Amino acid sequence: MAGSPGTSAERYDAVDVIRTKRDRRELSDGQIDWVIDAYTRGAVADEQMSALAMAVLLNGMTHRETARWTSAMIASGERMDFSSLRSRAGRTLPTADKHSTGGVGDKITLPLAPLVAVFGVAVPQLSGRGLGHTGGTLDKLEAIPGWRASLTNDEMMSQLGDVGAVICAAGAGLAPADRKLYALRDVTGTVEAIPLIASSIMSKKIAEGTGALVLDVKVGSGAFMKDEASARELAQTMVALGQDAGVNTVALLTDMDTPLGLTAGNAIEVEESLEVLAGGGPEDVVELTVRLAEEMLAAAGVHDADPARALSDGRAMDVWRRMIAAQGGDPDAPLPAARESETVYAPADGVLVGLDALAVGVAAWRLGAGRARKEDAVQAGAGVRLHAKPGAFVRAGEPLMTLLTDTPERFARAKEALEGAVTIAPEGARPARRLIIDRIA
Amino acid sequence: MAGSPGTSAERYDAVDVIRTKRDRRELSDGQIDWVIDAYTRGAVADEQMSALAMAVLLNGMTHRETARWTSAMIASGERMDFSSLRSRAGRTLPTADKHSTGGVGDKITLPLAPLVAVFGVAVPQLSGRGLGHTGGTLDKLEAIPGWRASLTNDEMMSQLGDVGAVICAAGAGLAPADRKLYALRDVTGTVEAIPLIASSIMSKKIAEGTGALVLDVKVGSGAFMKDEASARELAQTMVALGQDAGVNTVALLTDMDTPLGLTAGNAIEVEESLEVLAGGGPEDVVELTVRLAEEMLAAAGVHDADPARALSDGRAMDVWRRMIAAQGGDPDAPLPAARESETVYAPADGVLVGLDALAVGVAAWRLGAGRARKEDAVQAGAGVRLHAKPGAFVRAGEPLMTLLTDTPERFARAKEALEGAVTIAPEGARPARRLIIDRIA
Repeated sequence: MAGSPGTSAERYDAVDVIRTKRDRRELSDGQIDWVIDAYTRGAVADEQMSALAMAVLLNGMTHRETARWTSAMIASGERMDFSSLRSRAGRTLPTADKHSTGGVGDKITLPLAPLVAVFGVAVPQLSGRGLGHTGGTLDKLEAIPGWRASLTNDEMMSQLGDVGAVICAAGAGLAPADRKLYALRDVTGTVEAIPLIASSIMSKKIAEGTGALVLDVKVGSGAFMKDEASARELAQTMVALGQDAGVNTVALLTDMDTPLGLTAGNAIEVEESLEVLAGGGPEDVVELTVRLAEEMLAAAGVHDADPARALSDGRAMDVWRRMIAAQGGDPDAPLPAARESETVYAPADGVLVGLDALAVGVAAWRLGAGRARKEDAVQAGAGVRLHAKPGAFVRAGEPLMTLLTDTPERFARAKEALEGAVTIAPEGARPARRLIIDRIA
Repeated sequence: MAGSPGTSAERYDAVDVIRTKRDRRELSDGQIDWVIDAYTRGAVADEQMSALAMAVLLNGMTHRETARWTSAMIASGERMDFSSLRSRAGRTLPTADKHSTGGVGDKITLPLAPLVAVFGVAVPQLSGRGLGHTGGTLDKLEAIPGWRASLTNDEMMSQLGDVGAVICAAGAGLAPADRKLYALRDVTGTVEAIPLIASSIMSKKIAEGTGALVLDVKVGSGAFMKDEASARELAQTMVALGQDAGVNTVALLTDMDTPLGLTAGNAIEVEESLEVLAGGGPEDVVELTVRLAEEMLAAAGVHDADPARALSDGRAMDVWRRMIAAQGGDPDAPLPAARESETVYAPADGVLVGLDALAVGVAAWRLGAGRARKEDAVQAGAGVRLHAKPGAFVRAGEPLMTLLTDTPERFARAKEALEGAVTIAPEGARPARRLIIDRIA
């Protein structure tokens, strides 16, 4: 209240900050620093922050505001530092990380982290769990018997030095403001704001301390960004935030209209990753893994590497085995399999030109591969296995997909999700798919 | 989350409702009914409602949405019914009420309610307390020794039949959704949304059960609506909501660039009201009281009344005395006076052309006439007494205002609020003031 006779120990007033953005004015550095800090310590209430988030969603933020918002979230927690990182041989290790905005069948992190480590670039990959139709890297790796996601900072540091790659859960100390704000945005319809998405991702990645960062921004039905223009805007915003913070950042825009590879689930995606690490695997998964490895290596200053070769000659698999074992996993243990399966058949002869990523993601989720609430457990064996990808010729009655679950009552709703997901065209038709749509640096 | 496998007993999902308005789509009747009901019973959280309120503020609501929102708030509580109201002589009594959007020195309800009752129209005036720089009718009346604001519905009904006028606190049973939502909007920067302001006011007035309603929509520095266009939009929205609900509703747009009358405070405004009821008082207060009485009477079907006469011949004062006594007040008791006073002098010779309503309101508030928090007490004697109004010729060093408080440490901040509030022009200048700007029916 303007001119209130009351006094307050706070430097700013939450309602004034909200009104500034509501009325399309720019937030000052002081306002942003204060509101993030005050929200983290509870002096700004959830209902105030959600009103501000809605105002940001509808009225936007300038680049300066977004950069300051990101810094304020980083300042809310600890910041890791890999500058003292050394290989077993005592050599300084550059670091590179990858972040994907999330898609269906996106298991790329699994082969990618050990692949990049082959070339002496350490990969500190802090990952998350899945929520909704996009899977989480940690859920996938937890299908491996014994593997654990939580490491202390010291364990992470020591594994990075010894093995060169670590995929683990982000500790609670990194950008706690983001954790609190993300949970709030999730229940208040304020997730879809590019400045807030960009600052959420980048605050964690910058606080994590990586030297180089490659962003895989997904575009299409199964992605968070359905259209190329929004994905491009998000990519540009994140690249600018990274560069501002001294992290060598590059983004690829990649297709998510159809799932990556032939599997969407947990154990079955680990299995497919192992095929890639063994020199095989689906073409699109291999292509994207190799391309992202090249980008990460280049961003970390390594230009003469041949990642495709490190997949075929087993060097990436060696790092994988050590990486899994270092976190308690048994790389040779059989992976869990779903107890029940049901097959979906091709409805007609012709060329498979469309296989909707969102539909497959929702089906896998409903089969038990994903969770509806943070506290739910996932089924390691559940998911969808594809038998054909767009471009393939199929015959009516031929198996198109296998649905996998431990709980067969889930088949019906999974099949509902798949209604209309498959498009078959007369012979001679060709699906248009560019896997890698653009590069933004 | 679209397609979530979880189930819920709720008919709608809060995030879907928020997204609808966020994405500029119209809310359905079902969504509106549900979100108001679910918010009232706590199934929609404060942080969800504040995000929705911000989306409504920025993206607007159609007339249909606003009308439904209002009905949903009415349906959240009880609805009063005056159709069985009879005078002591057994005659059916029509009812009329007035609502002001709030201004500085706005004591009009005090003489107006008994004045209208003189003509056999019952006035069930449910009022509020002040928050911020605009005073509250109940705070003013509470300056009268013994007077109490809280009545049961039965007491109110019986006083309306016996005396014809009652000014009391709105019971907790009327539109509880509005009470909860208003408190939320106050702390989340979402007060200034015309559909929300209109539905807040009209839900209470419609639930209160009045047959006719006259709205005094203030425009100017001391009003909630600073510009005529917004005030007009608010007035039109409220008139339409009233008519839709079968309440004969009319609005006046009136000036609030300068205070009404010569007093802004509590006891001193009661004093000025008594002057008006005694046939005297400041010209603008008399003019507005008489005009609003004419509008209320006409809206209630009484067209041959002469309210100005009922002020000068003491009939309105008679009703006042009975109205105050019926609520425990002593109409003859001396009113409390402030312990300390300080005079503000004219800085130059000339015509007083500007006396800023907001500045005077904030000064009175800081002197103790208003409260910063709902739980604060007010000082009955505090306020600002004006010695000249725009249009008067003043001489340098002549008293312009007297500041009144029990706590003299408040003078300094009150005087700060008054800096720049007074404009004096050379002789011959004339202030432009239309007290009644327009009528909207």
